[in-house]
Amino acid sequence: MTAREPIDKQQAWRALSQHADAMREVHLKDLFQERDGRHERYTRRAAGMMLDLSKQRWREETLDMLLDLARAADVPAAIGRLLSGERVNRSEDRPALHTALRLPADARLEVDGEDVVPGVHRTLDHMATMVAKFHAGQWRGATGRAITDVVNLGVGGSDLGPLMVTHALADYRPRDMHPVEVHFASTMDGSQLADYLTRLNPETTLFVISSKSFTTIDTLSNARTARDWLFSHLADGDDVDGLVMRQHFIGVSASPEKMSEWGIADNNQLEFWEWVGGRYSLWGAIGLPIALAVGMENFQALLAGAHAMDRHFATAELADNLPVLLALAGIWNVNFLDIRAHSILPYDGRLEYFASYLEQLEMESNGKSVTNDGRSIDYSTCPVLWGQLGPNAQHAFYQLLHQGTQPVECDFIAPIRRYDRVEDEATRKHLKAQHRLTLANCFAQSRVLMLGDDAIEDDGPRPSHKRYRGNQPSTTLLLDRLTPETLGALVALYEHKVFVQATIWDINPFDQWGVELGKKIATQTEQILTTHEGVESLDDSSRGLIETVWRESEY
Amino acid sequence: MTAREPIDKQQAWRALSQHADAMREVHLKDLFQERDGRHERYTRRAAGMMLDLSKQRWREETLDMLLDLARAADVPAAIGRLLSGERVNRSEDRPALHTALRLPADARLEVDGEDVVPGVHRTLDHMATMVAKFHAGQWRGATGRAITDVVNLGVGGSDLGPLMVTHALADYRPRDMHPVEVHFASTMDGSQLADYLTRLNPETTLFVISSKSFTTIDTLSNARTARDWLFSHLADGDDVDGLVMRQHFIGVSASPEKMSEWGIADNNQLEFWEWVGGRYSLWGAIGLPIALAVGMENFQALLAGAHAMDRHFATAELADNLPVLLALAGIWNVNFLDIRAHSILPYDGRLEYFASYLEQLEMESNGKSVTNDGRSIDYSTCPVLWGQLGPNAQHAFYQLLHQGTQPVECDFIAPIRRYDRVEDEATRKHLKAQHRLTLANCFAQSRVLMLGDDAIEDDGPRPSHKRYRGNQPSTTLLLDRLTPETLGALVALYEHKVFVQATIWDINPFDQWGVELGKKIATQTEQILTTHEGVESLDDSSRGLIETVWRESEY
Repeated sequence: MTAREPIDKQQAWRALSQHADAMREVHLKDLFQERDGRHERYTRRAAGMMLDLSKQRWREETLDMLLDLARAADVPAAIGRLLSGERVNRSEDRPALHTALRLPADARLEVDGEDVVPGVHRTLDHMATMVAKFHAGQWRGATGRAITDVVNLGVGGSDLGPLMVTHALADYRPRDMHPVEVHFASTMDGSQLADYLTRLNPETTLFVISSKSFTTIDTLSNARTARDWLFSHLADGDDVDGLVMRQHFIGVSASPEKMSEWGIADNNQLEFWEWVGGRYSLWGAIGLPIALAVGMENFQALLAGAHAMDRHFATAELADNLPVLLALAGIWNVNFLDIRAHSILPYDGRLEYFASYLEQLEMESNGKSVTNDGRSIDYSTCPVLWGQLGPNAQHAFYQLLHQGTQPVECDFIAPIRRYDRVEDEATRKHLKAQHRLTLANCFAQSRVLMLGDDAIEDDGPRPSHKRYRGNQPSTTLLLDRLTPETLGALVALYEHKVFVQATIWDINPFDQWGVELGKKIATQTEQILTTHEGVESLDDSSRGLIETVWRESEY
Repeated sequence: MTAREPIDKQQAWRALSQHADAMREVHLKDLFQERDGRHERYTRRAAGMMLDLSKQRWREETLDMLLDLARAADVPAAIGRLLSGERVNRSEDRPALHTALRLPADARLEVDGEDVVPGVHRTLDHMATMVAKFHAGQWRGATGRAITDVVNLGVGGSDLGPLMVTHALADYRPRDMHPVEVHFASTMDGSQLADYLTRLNPETTLFVISSKSFTTIDTLSNARTARDWLFSHLADGDDVDGLVMRQHFIGVSASPEKMSEWGIADNNQLEFWEWVGGRYSLWGAIGLPIALAVGMENFQALLAGAHAMDRHFATAELADNLPVLLALAGIWNVNFLDIRAHSILPYDGRLEYFASYLEQLEMESNGKSVTNDGRSIDYSTCPVLWGQLGPNAQHAFYQLLHQGTQPVECDFIAPIRRYDRVEDEATRKHLKAQHRLTLANCFAQSRVLMLGDDAIEDDGPRPSHKRYRGNQPSTTLLLDRLTPETLGALVALYEHKVFVQATIWDINPFDQWGVELGKKIATQTEQILTTHEGVESLDDSSRGLIETVWRESEY
């Protein structure tokens, strides 16, 4: 690839800038009055979901221009390159093949002349064998008792994906199996782990150590504490015959050498590949906690759902392509309407961790400011993205969305059907009413954000503190229901949205150089804290903080 | 009070605007090189904490001008009005007296001629009696077994405060008492509650229904489901003698009538007052789950810590006043440097819910755009505020902080001492090392955010994707340790920060009219969903969404 003309210098971008000058003054409520049928015109369906983009502050000509922009950035070719395993991660010179993790067994995908699909399915088979052993009560601890609790030690991508999905699919726990509870400990300060160690029984607890590099200090600090705890309770402090290591630890990493060094038994090593980014890794071995919680069949369904979205992404026209449209809405808001914040608002308690998951996916992928060719960027890339369960956020920060001074784009997400399979009739009726109430709130909020005061029939003059300006754009995404399939498709939708935006911004969504310097400086700072040497080389604030710690604690 | 001159038309504001034009070009690293002793000059201590504001992008003259602005907005007088019980919540014509909830028993505070302190302490005494009964194993369910699980049903302020504090102070659970586990269910869709109902035993479970108005539909929906569940298990579906209601429900509200109507026994009603805002309410009866989890003594210590901050706020000079300084840093960033996002980054796993708590406190309080006199505002008020545990966020969204295109202000929060009271020597050593590592990361990150590339000795030329521009401003807040006292002071610090900003912006931080219209429209929408009548009155998108639900589910 040769350096392309900066996107913001291209005709498609300039046309949008000009168009935005006019659109900035147009209120959403007027757009709805201009023409009928807006919902149908801006709604698309695929992979068990429906995307309604009619409450974006755009007209058909806007969308046409945005599609021109996507073509100018060569989005269709970029999609092809991503899915065919080209080295789209240019700064690290490798492909980004999370989509390969969800290819069916009979697919082929050659990378450097080698088909990666058999390796992917070997790992899935290995996971399946492990999961079956746990669910049969045959995975036993050092004293012979079956494992009942699995603690995932991982952070970032090795934590957020499995945590989010395990929580979202809690209804899908298989019955009639030996029960295994899955827990997550991620924080480097030991808070969560320390709590588990007081509550769990070492005889029946196993730890999964998840780290792509197997050098993540947060995770390995926790792993060492866990190992000491097991050794002291089960092996008189020293695991001479390696029994504790064999029965109580599984490793998940792209580095088998590092796993072996740490003492993970060969057969307890699950591998993944350099070409899977941490924040895109829940689809393979990093997903082990998911498979342990919901069973291998549901895990496969999750992959199938994501694959359905991959197929849609690969084959649908740009104008009907959900990830492309979602990406373009975001570009329109952040680059042309200067809306620098984006809120993710699921109306389903099971999606409690979905916003945290997307915070990483979007901000770590696209929080960049140089192009693939190393040029500094003048336009905005990823907005600040945050969220919370919608109904809870109504009682927390919706005040700012409705009456604050910051423009914010919102994504509303909800399942259409829920609770209709609850067995007890009275409970079913009651819970379905709660779900209907939740949907009503979801629709009502996007309506008020759009229309402001006009959402209600005029009930006389109101003082200004009771007035709503409206005009906050939003997207509504309805899932048929929340299942392993639709959840897989939902996550893949956002993965691909991020890729499309990165393509248009001409940035690399698959590296994360912005976290490297912090790691180096942290190591250096920890040495200074410990050895009391070298503090004079630091800036005055760092020095002051470190000296305070020395003065007031025993470090 | 007469209408004051708009703050942005006043000399102090104009001077800052002009000054900002120059400061916008100055890099933080240059500020550190200009003059030595910056840490000491911008650091203040009070109530068990140290606030280092040296990494803000300001000079002494900036701070002087900001203090002028605070004086121009009459902040000292406003502090006096708040603490003395004047009707500072003008749109609702009442005082905002959360500080009264933490006054010692021998204090006096007259509101409309009546001393409110005795009432506050009567409620605290009532709480203490209840807590003692639980901890003695004397609060028994309908079948005579002692209550072991308490589920708090509440949302917004009736959820976030108790949840955050209970989690933060988990180390302070009293020993040698009848154990009571505290749980939280807030989402209106029943997700969390449904999960508890499958795991808890109705015989030993009690529900606390927390709602200021006792009409919050989210909470009452959950409460009805809980009541049905208890009745069907314990009373053959009908609680004829009221035993289940008496033994399994406590109500917390400002409306005793509504509690009685719902069937809460008189002696199980805990009251608070109209003059306590929901998001400021954890200090009284809403804090019952906290007291149940950590004991009444620790709850009192939490109040004492907050009161210490109140005293500091009332008496310290503006230039040494922690809440004032924190507020001014925020004003400088959002109003003059156009930094519209603010991230809260605690380096202590126990503060997992602190960012969510502040999201409500700040955005619901100050997400406003009309002044106390009803004038529309042209300047920014509350920025978008979000956060996550710092070490975890390093693996999630720090990429955007370091290399993205959005400027963000950050608050780093950490305890200086931790784990030094762990009994087992080996464990103590290990956990202290994890804490030291965490502090090192905290200091390293604020250093890199400030200095960018200059944080490290030049190790040769780097490609642009490995470069860091720095210049992201931050505050570092160190607690001596995380105790009930310092946590109380920390929350009070942010409460008062919010008040100072509101005073300068001339907005009312104690109302939340922006959530009212959504409630109305949700009720209307739910009726339409249920009755299938009235959909034609809605906008095209709402109509399309509702018709989709009708088509694809049985509503």
